[in-house]
Parts: sequence; C-alpha cells; structure tokens
Amino acid sequence: MLHPGRDARIRAGHRWVYRNEIARLDGPALDGDAVEVHAAGGRTLGIGLLNTRSAIAIRLLASPGELVDEAFFRERLARAIAVRRRVVGDTTACRLVFGESDGLPGLVVDRYGDVLVLQTLTLGMDRRKEMLARLLGDLLAPRGIFARNDPAVRRLEGLPRDTGWLTGAGATEVLIEEDGVRFVVDVARGQKTGFFLDQRENRRHVAALAPGGAMLDVFSYTGAWALHALARGAASAVGIEASLDAVKAAERNAALNGAGDRYRPRVANAFDELRRLCAEPARWDLVVLDPPAFVKTRTALAAGLAGYKEINLRALKLVAPGGWLVTCSCSFHVAEAALLGTVWEASRDARRYIRLVESRSQARDHPVHPAMPETRYLKCLIFAVD
Amino acid sequence: MLHPGRDARIRAGHRWVYRNEIARLDGPALDGDAVEVHAAGGRTLGIGLLNTRSAIAIRLLASPGELVDEAFFRERLARAIAVRRRVVGDTTACRLVFGESDGLPGLVVDRYGDVLVLQTLTLGMDRRKEMLARLLGDLLAPRGIFARNDPAVRRLEGLPRDTGWLTGAGATEVLIEEDGVRFVVDVARGQKTGFFLDQRENRRHVAALAPGGAMLDVFSYTGAWALHALARGAASAVGIEASLDAVKAAERNAALNGAGDRYRPRVANAFDELRRLCAEPARWDLVVLDPPAFVKTRTALAAGLAGYKEINLRALKLVAPGGWLVTCSCSFHVAEAALLGTVWEASRDARRYIRLVESRSQARDHPVHPAMPETRYLKCLIFAVD
Repeated sequence: MLHPGRDARIRAGHRWVYRNEIARLDGPALDGDAVEVHAAGGRTLGIGLLNTRSAIAIRLLASPGELVDEAFFRERLARAIAVRRRVVGDTTACRLVFGESDGLPGLVVDRYGDVLVLQTLTLGMDRRKEMLARLLGDLLAPRGIFARNDPAVRRLEGLPRDTGWLTGAGATEVLIEEDGVRFVVDVARGQKTGFFLDQRENRRHVAALAPGGAMLDVFSYTGAWALHALARGAASAVGIEASLDAVKAAERNAALNGAGDRYRPRVANAFDELRRLCAEPARWDLVVLDPPAFVKTRTALAAGLAGYKEINLRALKLVAPGGWLVTCSCSFHVAEAALLGTVWEASRDARRYIRLVESRSQARDHPVHPAMPETRYLKCLIFAVD
Repeated sequence: MLHPGRDARIRAGHRWVYRNEIARLDGPALDGDAVEVHAAGGRTLGIGLLNTRSAIAIRLLASPGELVDEAFFRERLARAIAVRRRVVGDTTACRLVFGESDGLPGLVVDRYGDVLVLQTLTLGMDRRKEMLARLLGDLLAPRGIFARNDPAVRRLEGLPRDTGWLTGAGATEVLIEEDGVRFVVDVARGQKTGFFLDQRENRRHVAALAPGGAMLDVFSYTGAWALHALARGAASAVGIEASLDAVKAAERNAALNGAGDRYRPRVANAFDELRRLCAEPARWDLVVLDPPAFVKTRTALAAGLAGYKEINLRALKLVAPGGWLVTCSCSFHVAEAALLGTVWEASRDARRYIRLVESRSQARDHPVHPAMPETRYLKCLIFAVD
C-alpha cells in the first residue's frame, strides 16, 4: 500500500513505484514476486514485480486482476515481436523488447541474425530469465540466446554481472546486415548488446546527406555511421575512436563492405583529435558526433553540457561551408532543448550560422511509452551549416 | 535603447524586441526603418526592422555594423535558397524562405513550380516587397511572383489584406509534383500559400506505412496524405473534409494520379463523422489526424486539448488491431509533451495500447532557428496501436 497522494503518477500511467512511496507491505511478498499495488485509499492500481533492494521497488506490468504467469509473458513477448515486424525495415538486427515500452519492465531482447541477446535488468525479470528464454525459443527458434547481464544498472537491483549462453552455444560473433551494409557484431564483448541499434534510422537519414562528400565520424566505434554513408556514396570517411579494438572491428567491417580504401579510422581521443584537426586546413562536408553518455546522472549535467559544447564548437569549425553537422546525445538527462541550446552557443562561438533541419530520436524498434519520459533518451539533431 | 535587463533574451539569440522592452527611441526612426538596438548600458545588440504599432516592435536581422541594403537581402535570399537545394528532395514545391530561421524575419517565400508566392508579414518586410520581388526574380527567374498577404497576423502589424501578382501574371493554379504524386495548387485561394508544404516528409514517412491497408485521412483538405499513401500501395483511402471546394480539389488530384477509384473524400465535419464511423463495424489500418490549429492563443489551450483528445479517442477506436495512428498538431502553443499526454489519455479511455515509434516535426525546408522556439510549431506523432 502506498503513502497517501503517491498514486497520482501511477494513475497517470507511469510504471515505477519508488521505495519511499510504499507505506507498508502486506502479506508474505518476497523480492521478485508479482505483487498488487494499492493506493492509500485501498484501490488496486495494478500488479508489479517487487524488489525492496532497489530504489524503484516495484515495476508495474499488469492490470488489477491479471494473472502474471507464463501465458502472460508469452503474450507480451509475442506482441512486442509483432510490432517489430511492422516497424523494422531492411535489417537482420533489431531490438525485439524494450522494457517498459513493451509492458515488460527490466527486459531487453535484441536480435542479431540467428542469435538473441537477453538483458534482465531487474530482479523480477532476472528470476524469470529461464522461462523468458524458453518462451523466446518457442516464438523465434534462434540458434542461441546469450545473456548480456553486465550493465552497471543491475547493481542497483543487487544483481551480479553475469554473461553467457542461456540456450544454444557457438560463436558470439554474428554477421548482420542493415540496409545492405554488413557488420560483424560480437554479442559477448561489443558495446551495449553488441551494436548501436538505436541509431539505425538516424544512420539511414544521415547517409542520404553524404553522397560525394568527405565525412568525419567522431566517436566512430565500429564504423556504422561511416560505412552507411560510404555505401550511399560518400567520397571518403575518417573515423575517430579511442578503442583500438573498436577500430580493428571497424577496419574489418570496412573490408567486408569493400570500403577499406575510402575509410580510415584512427585510434584517438576525440577531444584531442578535434582540437588537432581544427589546426589543419581540411574541412568536412559532414561531421557526425555520436559520443557516449557524458551525463549519466542529473548532477553531472553542467559538466556534461560543457563537454557537448566543446565537441560541437570544434566540429562546427570543421564543417565546410554548406555542410552538415549531426550531433547526438544518448543521455536521458540532457533534454533536447538543452542540447539544442548548447549547439547554438557553440555555433555563435564558432561564428557559423546553423539551421536545425531535423530533430530525431531513437529507432522505431525502441518505442517510447507515452507516459514514461525515461523511455525516450536518444537525441539526433541535423543542422545545415552556412 | 532597451530597459535594463531586457537584453538577455536578445543576447541569447532571440530575434524579437517587444514594444514594452524599449526604453526610448533615439533619432528620427520611422516605422519600417532598420534601426540599431542598444542595451541599457549602451552596447549595440544588432539591427532590426521597426514597427511601433506591433507588440513585437523590432525584428532583429543583422549584426552591429552591417549595412541592411539591397545587397544584404540578396545574400540572405541566396543563402536560404542554397539551403533548400540541399534539404529538399524530389519535389517541385518547397518553402524557400522561412522568416526568422533564414535571418529574414517576417518573410515567407514558397515555390510552386514556376511560380513564387511571397508573404510579407511585418511592416518592415512589406515596405521592401518590390525590392524582394526584384531580387527573387534575378535569382530564380520565375514566371510570376504572387503576393499572398492575407494572413490574419498582418493585422497585428497594421497591414491590410493584399493579394495579387507582384510580377508576372497568368493562372494562379499550378501543377506540382512531390515524390511523383501530382497536385493542382491554387496559390491565390488555397490554404496558407496553397498547400501544406510543412508535412512533406511526414507524408512520405506515413505513406511507407500504408501498403495494402485501408486508410482514413481526417481533415484531408486536398488529399495529399491519402494520395501519397495510395501511390505507395494503400488499398483504399477515405478522406473527411468540411470544405466542399477542398473535396472537389481532392477528387481532381485523385484523378490526376489515377487513384480516383481507390480514394473517396467526403464532405463532413470531422468530429461528427468520426463519431458516426465509430458506430460502424469498419476499422482502418492507418488513421491520419491532421487538424487545423485548435489552439491559436495560449489561453485557448485547455479547450484545444479537449478537442485533440476527442478526435484522438475516436480515431484510436477506429484503428484496426496492429494498425497505425498518426496525429498532428500545427499549434505552436501545444507542446509535443502536451499532445503526447493527450493521446495517451485518449488511448486509456479507448482501451488501446499504443507505442510511440516516431516523433516528427515540420519539413526540412521549414528549418528551426535554434534560439527561437517559435520557429518550431508542427508535431507529427506516429503510434503503433496493438
């Protein structure tokens, strides 16, 4: 039962109950169990999975009276998969389940070719992972299901790091194809679950700006932005990436797509390399900034925005007249308006006139839950630079 | 010179000076003139066009020291046109100048085939319309330039309604082609300057969802959403539109594209017709709601949101399981979050689970000025409906 007044957010559709909103636990509820949530007045608000060790103590997933059993999870998974059949185009890799947005809080399932990657980010889902793997096996018959349970967020739930095959086995490197561009994804060791699926449609849009031009791909990871741009006709691309492993993977991906001669990834710190490039005469028709999350908590916002401003300032100086700047932030705590304001300030310092021609977010297989702002995290702003 | 403290917004990049922010006018400045704007401390903030009759008394357009002469306007126009060459794809109609975003506050220029349509929405621009027409003639050599100076906003500047050819002459009906779909646009009598150019890329995205399905196009005007969907393979489309003239134009456009047998526009009030359709058994794979601005002032927000809720509620009831709802708002005062919240409430009342798969705004030839939220007005939300 919740404290008085703590039901309003839930009734408006939000799916999280914070620990300090709970007045008392009735009955023998154990962590991981499905429990009913009641407003202070007694009204049942829904059913959620409990973890008293987490600040988000209950994740609601069902309506009052629903039975949260295997059939329930089977139907939720089937619906989530059905939506992807509608929203995902020409690719062999996509996100099949995106937590709260699919009514399955704490669960992420990605498909890479014939392999599924599972993340159970809450205790409630983690307890059910064998069942979930069995259901996914029934629904999709993958070669294997790999648990990629190493995100730091699991610590908040008292869960350990835990990676490995849940079902099946074999190579953790999988070949995927997206709009005809091929990548080797290592589901065991790659960033996130192996690849930045959430930028798929943004890569497609940005590649369409690339024909004939020189592209600079900053924080280039395994080369996805650049290789899509080259496939659409960019003349050349340079990548900047701090990880030697990622650069090696990018070089392999470039060779896979016959673009090895037009793509040159460099192992470098992006801040340093941008500064260095500003001192050189070369300018670029298209600069893409896709940094890791600079702002992981609300308190880190000011320092993070200073980082965004610095890279955008330098990137704007590097854009050729009549070129493009594409700037991304995957930090939930950086609102789009804050990112836009930061780029605007950078444009004034760089003395470049910019027009925002498109503002994009995460790919369609990462849908937004309309009542949960937390499910919308990615920003991708496209500027025409005079 | 401004009152103390009133320069902060301007220094942050906003381009409007409100009348009540001005402490005094020095020198013989007349309405329509280019005047220097000074902060209370004396610092020059920029140069703008003056109209003391308007609540927005100065629209900044140049930096301190710039000469606001014919060459200035020629360069601004040329830059705006150059940006459109980069951002606009397969179409013979687009917005060439979008006011503040192009550094030309109060000026709108649209191209429809070989005709340009000009709107001078402020006194400063209106005084210069012959010069602007001459410059546009030099830059683009159109068959004619039509002044479409009938927007209500001109009254706030003390300007009369005034439409007609500025240069050239001939038919005001022009054939345009957008992604291979053809429309007759009447630049003298159509909505806005004749067509909803700002939805171009949204129509393209939504059409890609249409193949094989039945589409309901609510507030369908001259049929653009439906005819694009039909061109991409929608099985059939019904339009709902209150204006008989618009429905006649839609029927003509359908015939032009060989889609007359699959497109049935109806003259009806959308609210009434949606209610009526809910009582019928037919459901639709794709419903598009593109209403006129329900909220034209901040004070009308609550009533306007009630209107949005009603049409979205009924539309959601009409979407077939596994279908799509596309909902738009062109009201600046309706923030995206407010529209999203309204659709969410409607989805709960309609007992339909929705996922927001994409959130879009106006077309790329209507760029956003990063420091002027007023330049971003269009919302287009795409929901997958379970």
